[in-house]
Amino acid sequence: MELFKVHSVKEAKELLRQNFADFAFAVEEIPIEQALGRYLAEDVVSPIDVPHFRRSTVDGYAVLAKDTFGASESMPVFLQVCEEVEMGKEAKSKLISGQAAYVPTGGMLPEGADSVVMVEYTEKLDATGIAVYYTAAPKENVVDVGDDIQSGSLVLPKGLKIRPQDIGVLSAIGLSTVKVFQKPKVAVISTGDEIVSPEEEVKPGQIKDINTFTLAAMVEAVGGVVTIKEVVRDDFDLLKQTVERVMAGNDIIILSGGSSVGTKDIVPKVINAVGEPGVFVHGVSIKPGKPTILAKVGKKPVFGLPGHPTSAMIVFKIFVEYFMKTFMHNQELDKFILGELAVNVHSAPGRETYQMVTLEKQGEKYLVKPVHGKSGFITLMSKATGYIKIPTNKEGLTEGETVKVYLF
Amino acid sequence: MELFKVHSVKEAKELLRQNFADFAFAVEEIPIEQALGRYLAEDVVSPIDVPHFRRSTVDGYAVLAKDTFGASESMPVFLQVCEEVEMGKEAKSKLISGQAAYVPTGGMLPEGADSVVMVEYTEKLDATGIAVYYTAAPKENVVDVGDDIQSGSLVLPKGLKIRPQDIGVLSAIGLSTVKVFQKPKVAVISTGDEIVSPEEEVKPGQIKDINTFTLAAMVEAVGGVVTIKEVVRDDFDLLKQTVERVMAGNDIIILSGGSSVGTKDIVPKVINAVGEPGVFVHGVSIKPGKPTILAKVGKKPVFGLPGHPTSAMIVFKIFVEYFMKTFMHNQELDKFILGELAVNVHSAPGRETYQMVTLEKQGEKYLVKPVHGKSGFITLMSKATGYIKIPTNKEGLTEGETVKVYLF
Repeated sequence: MELFKVHSVKEAKELLRQNFADFAFAVEEIPIEQALGRYLAEDVVSPIDVPHFRRSTVDGYAVLAKDTFGASESMPVFLQVCEEVEMGKEAKSKLISGQAAYVPTGGMLPEGADSVVMVEYTEKLDATGIAVYYTAAPKENVVDVGDDIQSGSLVLPKGLKIRPQDIGVLSAIGLSTVKVFQKPKVAVISTGDEIVSPEEEVKPGQIKDINTFTLAAMVEAVGGVVTIKEVVRDDFDLLKQTVERVMAGNDIIILSGGSSVGTKDIVPKVINAVGEPGVFVHGVSIKPGKPTILAKVGKKPVFGLPGHPTSAMIVFKIFVEYFMKTFMHNQELDKFILGELAVNVHSAPGRETYQMVTLEKQGEKYLVKPVHGKSGFITLMSKATGYIKIPTNKEGLTEGETVKVYLF
Repeated sequence: MELFKVHSVKEAKELLRQNFADFAFAVEEIPIEQALGRYLAEDVVSPIDVPHFRRSTVDGYAVLAKDTFGASESMPVFLQVCEEVEMGKEAKSKLISGQAAYVPTGGMLPEGADSVVMVEYTEKLDATGIAVYYTAAPKENVVDVGDDIQSGSLVLPKGLKIRPQDIGVLSAIGLSTVKVFQKPKVAVISTGDEIVSPEEEVKPGQIKDINTFTLAAMVEAVGGVVTIKEVVRDDFDLLKQTVERVMAGNDIIILSGGSSVGTKDIVPKVINAVGEPGVFVHGVSIKPGKPTILAKVGKKPVFGLPGHPTSAMIVFKIFVEYFMKTFMHNQELDKFILGELAVNVHSAPGRETYQMVTLEKQGEKYLVKPVHGKSGFITLMSKATGYIKIPTNKEGLTEGETVKVYLF
C-alpha cells in the first residue's frame, strides 16, 4: 500500500488547485427568470444607459432652471405650459425660455428643460399659465440619462451568485438571457456493507443510508445537480464498475466510505484502478475528516469522504463546496456570525478542529454552545446551527472568547 | 377617498396577523430527497431507535467488562473468541464470562457483551484465544440503542426549513416521505403606464419592467412559486379584471404600483372593488416603502407594494416574506452580521429607516458603508450586501457604532 503524507487543509486545497489548474465548468445561456442562485459565467456590461431618458423624481413642472432664478414665495415667476407629458410617453416639446411642461413622477423631461419644480411650489393661473414660487437649481428633481447605470459599465461581475436584485438589473438593461455556469453534475456514492437504501428493510447490524441524502442536498444547495445516488457494497470490483459507469456523465464524483475497515483500503485502490493520475491527497489533518481522499481521474475530480455523516458533511464543505465555488469563480464573502463561547472548547492536537455549535440569542449577542455526541451521530449536525473552526496551533478556546460561527 | 392612518411596522404586522388569524397553507407529502429548503408541516417524531442495535465505535473485541477487571499491560486476561461479527450482519452469539467476539467499527455487539476493547490492547494467541491487556469500563467504545435518536423523541420541529442534515435525519429514522407546507402560489403584477415587458421594445418615456423579476425571485427564495407574472397598465378596469382572474389559482397576490400619480389611487380602489373585506392598512411609516397596502380579499392576502424597485423589495421582506414564513411556522433566527459603521448615517424622522449597505472585511471585523443613490435606482440593491434598520425613535447612527447588517 502506498503511503501518503497527512496534509494540512491549506496544503490539500493548494494541491487541489494545482491539479485542476486548467479545469473549467461548461457555460450555458438561460432566461433571466431562471437565474436565481446561479453563478454568472461572464462580466455583465450594460449595453444601454438606465434610465435612457431624463426622468422626473417628482410630480411637477419641467423648466429651464435659469428662468426661475430669484423666484420665491413672495415673488413668483410666470411661465407658459406648452405640454402635459404623459406617463410612459415621449415628451414632444422643446422648451425655450419662458416655457414649462407638466411631468409626472417618473415621466420624461422635454428637451431644453434642466430642472423640475414640485407642483406644490407652483400655482395654475389659467389654461396655460403658471406661477412658480421657487428657485430651482439645475438638475434638481431630475434623474439624468445613465444616472443609475451607464452604458458600457460593469454591472455584475463574473462569478456572482445571482440574487433577486441582480435579475432586476439584468431586466433593467434589457437582457432576457444570461450566461451562467452549467450546474455541475455530481454522482454521490455511499459505500459500506452495513448500509442499506431507504426502501430496503433494515436487519440487525444494518443502518439506513444517510450520506447520499445529506451530500446530495449539499450539492443542490451549492448549485449542483445530483444525477446518480447509489449505495454500493465494500467490494473492489463492484465499486470499480460503479465508479467507471458514473465517470462518463458527471463532472464530479463523490464517494463516502462506510465505516468498515475494508473500505479504508478499497476506495483509494478503486480510484487508482479507474484511471490516471489518481489519488493525490490521502489524509488531511482535520477533525473530523482525517481519512479524506482527493483524486483526479482523467480530467475529473474524485472526492473520497469519510463514512460518518458529520465528517462527510464537514469534508464536503471544506473541499467539494470549495472546488465547486472556485470553478464557478464565486467571490462571496464567508458568512459568519460572531458569538461568545459559553464554555471552554477543546481541540484535537495538531489538527484543525471543526466543532458543531448552537447559537442562543442573549440580548444583543449570541451565546455559542458546543453540540456534543459521538462522531457517528447524525443528530450532531441536525442539532447544530453552525460550526466553529479551531486552528491547528491552538489547544482549544476559552469561555467568553468571541468566535466566528459559520452557518450551514 | 377613504383616509387611512399611517401605521408603524409593528402595528401593520399585528393587523396582518389579526386579519389572517385562521389562515393556513395547504400541506403535502413529498419524497425526502425533494425536501431541501421546504418547511416542515408537522413535528417529526422518530418511530425507531437510532442505532437500533448496539454498535462498536472501534475495531476490537466485544467483552464482558467485568472479565477484564484488573487487566493491564503487564498482566493480561485470557479470553476465548466465539465469533467474528461481520459488518452489516447480525451478531449470532451470546457471550458468557470468559468469551469475546471480534467486532469491526460500526459492527453489532453480541448479546451479553457490554464493552469493546480496542484491537491494539489485545494479542491473538491461537485460533480462538486472545490476551487482553486493558481494563475495559462498561459501555466503553459502545454506542447504545437509541443513543443518537430515541424512539418517540421529537427529532425535527414543525416549521423547520429543511437542511441537508435534516434530510439525513429523516433517512436515518426510516422515513422516505415527509409532510411539508405546499409552496405558496403567488401572482406578481406590476402596474404602470411607463413599464414594458422585457420582450417589448422600449420607447422614449418607457422603462423595462424590473419588479416582477425581483419580486418573483424573492418569492422563489422564500420558498414560494410564482404562477403568474404580468405587467398591467394603470387602468381601473384592466387591473380589476387581472386581479379577479389571478385570485382563483393563487394563495397570495402581489401588486407593485407604477410611479405614476394615477396608480396611487387605482390600486386600493381595485382591491376594494374585487372583494371584501379589502384594504386594512394603507401607508406604513417606513423609508422606503410608505405607500404600502395590506389587504384581504375573501380569505386571501393582497399586498400593494411601491413601484420603486428598492422600496418594493424592502416592503416584500418586511411584509410578504414575514407572512409566508409566519404561516409556514418558520422559527429561523434572523441572520445578521455585526459590523462597524464607517460613516454617520441619517434616518427619516418618524419612520423606520432601511439603509442599504455594503460590507468590507477589515481584519477580523466588517466595515459597514451605506450605498447611496436615488430611490428609484435598481443599483441601490444590486450594489448592496444587506441593509441596516434605524428605529423610528433614532435620528441616525454614528460612525464607529456597531450595527446589525441583515443580508439579502
